[in-house]
Amino acid sequence: MKHDKVLLGHGSGGRMMRELIEGLFLQTLTGGYARLGSEDSAVLELPEGFTGRIAITTDSFVVNPIFFPGGNIGDLAVYGTVNDLAMSGAKPLYLTAGFIVEEGLPLTELAEVVRSMKRAADEAGVSIVAGDTKVVERGKADRLFINTSGVGVVRDGLDISSSAIKPGDKIIVSGTIGDHGMAVMSKREGLEFGSDILSDSAPLNSLVDAMLAVCPEIHAMRDPTRGGVASTLNEFAHESGVCIMVDERELPVTDAVRGACDILGLDPLYVANEGKLIAAVPPGCVYDVLEAMKDNRYGRDAVVIGEVMAEPAGKVLMRTLIGGTRIVDMLAGEQLPRIC
Amino acid sequence: MKHDKVLLGHGSGGRMMRELIEGLFLQTLTGGYARLGSEDSAVLELPEGFTGRIAITTDSFVVNPIFFPGGNIGDLAVYGTVNDLAMSGAKPLYLTAGFIVEEGLPLTELAEVVRSMKRAADEAGVSIVAGDTKVVERGKADRLFINTSGVGVVRDGLDISSSAIKPGDKIIVSGTIGDHGMAVMSKREGLEFGSDILSDSAPLNSLVDAMLAVCPEIHAMRDPTRGGVASTLNEFAHESGVCIMVDERELPVTDAVRGACDILGLDPLYVANEGKLIAAVPPGCVYDVLEAMKDNRYGRDAVVIGEVMAEPAGKVLMRTLIGGTRIVDMLAGEQLPRIC
Repeated sequence: MKHDKVLLGHGSGGRMMRELIEGLFLQTLTGGYARLGSEDSAVLELPEGFTGRIAITTDSFVVNPIFFPGGNIGDLAVYGTVNDLAMSGAKPLYLTAGFIVEEGLPLTELAEVVRSMKRAADEAGVSIVAGDTKVVERGKADRLFINTSGVGVVRDGLDISSSAIKPGDKIIVSGTIGDHGMAVMSKREGLEFGSDILSDSAPLNSLVDAMLAVCPEIHAMRDPTRGGVASTLNEFAHESGVCIMVDERELPVTDAVRGACDILGLDPLYVANEGKLIAAVPPGCVYDVLEAMKDNRYGRDAVVIGEVMAEPAGKVLMRTLIGGTRIVDMLAGEQLPRIC
Repeated sequence: MKHDKVLLGHGSGGRMMRELIEGLFLQTLTGGYARLGSEDSAVLELPEGFTGRIAITTDSFVVNPIFFPGGNIGDLAVYGTVNDLAMSGAKPLYLTAGFIVEEGLPLTELAEVVRSMKRAADEAGVSIVAGDTKVVERGKADRLFINTSGVGVVRDGLDISSSAIKPGDKIIVSGTIGDHGMAVMSKREGLEFGSDILSDSAPLNSLVDAMLAVCPEIHAMRDPTRGGVASTLNEFAHESGVCIMVDERELPVTDAVRGACDILGLDPLYVANEGKLIAAVPPGCVYDVLEAMKDNRYGRDAVVIGEVMAEPAGKVLMRTLIGGTRIVDMLAGEQLPRIC
């Protein structure tokens, strides 16, 4: 390990986090945990009379502030875990909710968060079946942290994995990028443009259902949260041993997000999304998948942003607006702490 | 709700926590979440070609300090969730681990915790299959919080529930009480007697297996963590509508724990345990269950501490050493914050 203390960058979704996962968690917790490094959910067999596979995932949410334009930590926590299950091709069924509350949090705020979780669970069609509440002294947490873990069932015949991407695949993004990260940043920093940008936080399981209905052969899906689209594409390229070439002209970014990124010196490719997915789709399916996505409220702005090539393996490249080609690297450290 | 802010007592395992659960979580998150109020795990059906039932549970750990005599936050988190599954009669299979780390935590300490989790998972026979890491700024958390959620499969034919206890049942505790809470307190307060008391943190699934093998009709099981034995017995009495009469002479407490409790003015009945269970067992099974428990390393000191009566329903009473009878109430607020 390059550092002797945990730094903010270790939670960023970028290269430092990968070093922590590979250098500590994977080395120590061998076995099933190895899936952690590469997929949003673990897909597992059940013993003794069970047939079929289940998917399991976990995510802790420490977003600051806990209320932001377009959502709050509660619906974010539900959608985030629903989406992690959906990305593995699972039908999300059951969620757990673990609350760590800082002493002094107004109960009205906690209640608002819990009500949002219920609405979010209802929209996603999942049940919150178990919970836990811990309270720590003032100054020992930051208002509210929530862990949501989830269980779903995996359809037969699917084999969706970030290591299954093939040259020739097209890369689809389901809509505009960077909205969640800039909504949170605008609220946190009290920026004027805040009102123009809403988090995209949303459940993507119905979108995934629609995509798999027309193309069960989709190779990979992932929701580009921490670390943004750039980090997800780098994980795809790394884990499948392929090159991904992105066309900058095709990247969907709203004017408000682009303007906010310009002011803050951020690149929307590295900004978190909470209601978007990236898919690697075999070329023969692309038209059908795009049409199915555009019929879903969470995929209306779906677009092909790039394609997969064999070489240079493990790299993400971008054709820029001015006609050059540059490397799109993984986020190295921390860009936007506590964005989810 | 009686308060307008979240207080430490809302996380205590006692009456204030029950008010929060019943006043907010159960009212808002109807449906499966209703199980939250009464059981350690939710037992659920799977759809579409699955047979059998699964159990799901979640628990966040905020124990302070993170290293204490007899364990640390890592093995505690694994055993705690394994035990919650086991208490519902489930065979624990898969765990998730969600880490919230305060910036600046030495990586050597995080590594020691993760290694402990691996050893604990191996001993309990479970796999840690998914994980998540978040890092927050210095002063926004307290070193390390861990959420573990778990999935297990439930044997056919079992119906273990804290609402299934019947008059005539015997109440068994699997060993000495108060060890975990006093181990953590002694370390936290820097008390001299600290070295004499070790946490009892342990996986109880093999003990439960042994008990169910000789008596599948066990009515209820629960591990008396936050709030201690007194709170668990009150939950039993409340949820089954029975009276539980405890015999103070039979309560197994080590001299070290009793001495420490005397010094600090604590009652071991309210002090947390992390490797003990309480069971309500039909009278015809009691001898076999006790024998089976004593053959297991985690049940060697198992003993009958009381019996179940019809009236006064919902109450826990104790025959005291001096021959009187007193009410054993639920923990009202917070006795020992951040004990798990």
